[in-house]
Amino acid sequence: MMYIEIDFSSDEALYMQLRNQIILGIATSRFHQGMSLPSVRQMAEEIGINMHTVNKAYNVLRQEGFVKIDRRHGTVIAVDENKVRALEEMKEELRVIIAKGSCKNISRKEVYALIDELYFEYSE
Amino acid sequence: MMYIEIDFSSDEALYMQLRNQIILGIATSRFHQGMSLPSVRQMAEEIGINMHTVNKAYNVLRQEGFVKIDRRHGTVIAVDENKVRALEEMKEELRVIIAKGSCKNISRKEVYALIDELYFEYSE
Repeated sequence: MMYIEIDFSSDEALYMQLRNQIILGIATSRFHQGMSLPSVRQMAEEIGINMHTVNKAYNVLRQEGFVKIDRRHGTVIAVDENKVRALEEMKEELRVIIAKGSCKNISRKEVYALIDELYFEYSE
Repeated sequence: MMYIEIDFSSDEALYMQLRNQIILGIATSRFHQGMSLPSVRQMAEEIGINMHTVNKAYNVLRQEGFVKIDRRHGTVIAVDENKVRALEEMKEELRVIIAKGSCKNISRKEVYALIDELYFEYSE
């Protein structure tokens, strides 16, 4: 019912993969505001990872302002559009990636072009 | 001698922290082309992590084209400037970050501004 791809051979932590898939789902409008995510138990069974891992992913998403916990509906997509905080987080997340690009002589314009390609993928 | 900061309370894997610190060191010109990194044993002792972790970080850096293994000088900073590959890697690394920004209504122009700030930090 909810299409989530986990790569068990990847070096990336499972909870981060799940968190990433949900963020990509929101960005591509597969998951929308107000939609309930499966319970921790359901999600764990569906994708074959343990409940602790799902719980960790949901907690990170909550801290990052993508879901909230609702007493009746469980974990619900609720994007907190606090831009100041989102921009600060983004700058930290970009730091090493841009350092890497700078070492490899990638220009700012080339990064802009990548940004444009990705925004294009996420626009409706 | 080599200033590396590891945050043992962070959720980020230690080998990734070490890898990131070395990339940031190259981007800010603290580490330069041809410079030898401490041996795996030395680095492990210096920063208090185990040799396996240092080895993993050095291996990732080698795969990403930041160091090469020299028979006489050990692990040496050697930036491979294969731009096509670097751009592909960057696009994958940006994917979730830009998805996140798109959910939070961060505009392309706002991302450009962050890119500019970071490039400014890494320019000599």
